[in-house]
Amino acid sequence: MMLDVPTRFDERDWERDVDGGPVRFAVVGLGWFGRDVAIPAIEESRFCETTTLVSGSPETAASVADEVGVETVLTYDEYAAGESADAYDAVYVVTPNALHLPHVETAAALGKHVLCEKPLEADGDRAAQAAAVCEEAGVTLMTAYRMQTTRSVRWVRERIREGFIGEPVQLHGEFSFRMLAGEDADPTQWRIDPDLAGGGALMDIGVYPLNTARFLLESDPVAVRATTSAPSPAFDGVDEHVAFTLEFPDGVTASCTASFGAASANRLAILGTEGRIVIEPIFGVDVTRTITLERDGGRTVVETDEPHEVCEEFDYFATAILADGELEAGGDHGVLDVRITDAIYESADRGERIEL
Amino acid sequence: MMLDVPTRFDERDWERDVDGGPVRFAVVGLGWFGRDVAIPAIEESRFCETTTLVSGSPETAASVADEVGVETVLTYDEYAAGESADAYDAVYVVTPNALHLPHVETAAALGKHVLCEKPLEADGDRAAQAAAVCEEAGVTLMTAYRMQTTRSVRWVRERIREGFIGEPVQLHGEFSFRMLAGEDADPTQWRIDPDLAGGGALMDIGVYPLNTARFLLESDPVAVRATTSAPSPAFDGVDEHVAFTLEFPDGVTASCTASFGAASANRLAILGTEGRIVIEPIFGVDVTRTITLERDGGRTVVETDEPHEVCEEFDYFATAILADGELEAGGDHGVLDVRITDAIYESADRGERIEL
Repeated sequence: MMLDVPTRFDERDWERDVDGGPVRFAVVGLGWFGRDVAIPAIEESRFCETTTLVSGSPETAASVADEVGVETVLTYDEYAAGESADAYDAVYVVTPNALHLPHVETAAALGKHVLCEKPLEADGDRAAQAAAVCEEAGVTLMTAYRMQTTRSVRWVRERIREGFIGEPVQLHGEFSFRMLAGEDADPTQWRIDPDLAGGGALMDIGVYPLNTARFLLESDPVAVRATTSAPSPAFDGVDEHVAFTLEFPDGVTASCTASFGAASANRLAILGTEGRIVIEPIFGVDVTRTITLERDGGRTVVETDEPHEVCEEFDYFATAILADGELEAGGDHGVLDVRITDAIYESADRGERIEL
Repeated sequence: MMLDVPTRFDERDWERDVDGGPVRFAVVGLGWFGRDVAIPAIEESRFCETTTLVSGSPETAASVADEVGVETVLTYDEYAAGESADAYDAVYVVTPNALHLPHVETAAALGKHVLCEKPLEADGDRAAQAAAVCEEAGVTLMTAYRMQTTRSVRWVRERIREGFIGEPVQLHGEFSFRMLAGEDADPTQWRIDPDLAGGGALMDIGVYPLNTARFLLESDPVAVRATTSAPSPAFDGVDEHVAFTLEFPDGVTASCTASFGAASANRLAILGTEGRIVIEPIFGVDVTRTITLERDGGRTVVETDEPHEVCEEFDYFATAILADGELEAGGDHGVLDVRITDAIYESADRGERIEL
C-alpha cells in the first residue's frame, strides 16, 4: 500500500520578502569545508556573496581569492584588528571548534552577524560566551547545522507536525565513518585534537543526530546517558566511539551513536505511536536522501532531489538578517547543544544519568 | 557494486547424526503461541512429537487434543503431581514468565528435559533457580530464543565470524508494536501484568535485541544503562517504552529500544570497523527477512527464504538431547539475560550505569 503524502521538495518554506542584499561574507577559515563546500555554495546562493577571506595561510588565501575573485584577504591578526571591516556584513566561522569564540567576539565587536560552524564551541561555557557577546552587540548568531534548512528534513518535520507518526516515542540515530582510513588520512588533524575540537566523534558528527532529534521533535532533552571509548591509539584523549541516549519530556528517547573508527553509516529513524519515518542516508553533505514512511501497514519510499543544502543554509541566514527576522538555530539553540555534549561526556565519565 | 557473499539458507549447520527419537513433548500452556505456532511447528519437525497437553482450561485442551490427535491431557495439578509422565520425554514451557519456575522444577524432578519460552523467568533469581534444578537433575534446559536457530541469523553470525564487518563497534536494535491496538487487544493479558511478566516491553520483546546482540557478538555485556517510561495508563506498573544500552568488552555498544505503545518496527544493525549488516525485519515469527550487507562502498541485499524457525528450534533442541550434545542457549545463557533485564530495570530506577 502506498501512502498518500506529498513528495516534492521544491519550495523554500522559510523564504521571506527582503530588501537589499546581498549579504557580504567574510569566510574565516579556509580548510576543506570552507573552501570546497561553503564558498561554492555562497557563489550559488541568491542572497550571499563572499567578499573577504581570512586565513592563516597566505598561499591558500591567495589561491582561493584568485579562484573566486575576492579582493579582501586578511590574516587572523588583521581580522582581529578589524581591518577592512567595511568589506563585509557577516562572518562565517569555519575554524576548529575551540577557536570559534575569539572570531565570534571579533565579529560581535565589529557589529557583524555570525554564521558559525557546528558545534558552536568546544565546551558549553565558551559557547555561552559566544552567544552572550552576540546578544550584547545586537548581532544575529546562528550555528550552521545544515539539517534545519535542508528541504527534505524540513519536509519530514512537517509530516511529524501533521501527525503522520502520531506521538513520537523513540528515535535511533547513527553517524560513522573511518576518519583515519585511506591515503589522505591525517592523524594530526584538529578534529581528533581534544584541545581544538573539545572531543572526538561526538563533537564532529554525534552532534548531527543530537541536533536533528531536537529539530524534528521540536523539544529539548532533559537528561542524557552515555558511553565513550577509544580502542585505537590514534584517538588517544578523544572519543573514537560514542553511544548516547537523550531523554526528552514524556518518555521520548533518542538512542544515538557516532564513530570515527567504523564503516560509513548515517541514518535517523523516528518511531511514533502510529507510524515511523526513516531517513537514510541523512547527514552527509548533499546526499540523495531516501525517506521511508510507514503507517497502518503501508509504506512509501521517497527519493529526494533537492537543491544544494549549504546554499539553502546561507540564504536562510541571509534572509533572516535582511528581514530582521527570527532564526531556528540561533544563539541559545547552539549553546544548548554544547551543554548537552558536555553532559554526555560527564555521563560517560561518571557512569550516571546527567540531568540538563 | 554487489558483494561476493553466499546467500543460501538451506542447510542445518547444527544438525547432528542421532539415534532414536522422536522426542515426545508435553506442551505446558495452551495460549496463542503454544497452540497456533509451536504445536504446528512440532508437527512439521523431524525429531519432535506432541504427546501431552497441559492446560488450565479443559475446553481448550480438549479442542487442541482433538485437533492434533494427542491422547494425554493434564491439568496443571496433574502435571505437577507427575501423572502420565511416561507419555513424554521433554517439556515445552509456554506459560506466563513468572510461572516458568514451578513447571521447570516439576520437569526436573521427573527427569524431563526442558525447552522454556523466553525470558527464562520473571527475575534473575528465579531464572537461576530454574537453571540450578535442571543442572542438579542432569536434564537439559534451553531458553526458546528463536534467533539462535533461525538460519538467516546464524548465517549473519557466520559472516561476522569471517570478518565481513571487521571488528564489531556499534549495534542498534528496535522492536515495537502496539500491544493494545485493535479490536482483539486484551488489556488484562499477562504480558502487561508486572507480577506475571516481571516487566513490560523489555521482558516480552526487548529481550530479542538483547539476546540477539549477545548471539551475534558471541560476547556478554559488562554494563547497562536504561530508561523506561509508561505514559499510557494501561501500562501502569510496567515499561511501555524502554531504551537501553548494553556495553560489551572493548567498547562495543548495543543501543536498543522496545515499545508496546508504538507502531511496528523490528530491526537489528551491526556496524563494524570495515562493514555493516542490517537485518530488517528480524524478530517476528517466520518473517521474510531482508539482510543488507555493506562494505567498501558496495552493498548486497539478500531476501531470505527459509524453513519454519520454530520447527528449526524444536529440532535443534531435540537433536541436542538425542545426541547428548551441547546447546547454545542453555541454562546459564538464559539466566544471564534475566540478570541483564534486572540490571536494566535497576539502571532505569537509579539513573546509574549498572555493572554486571
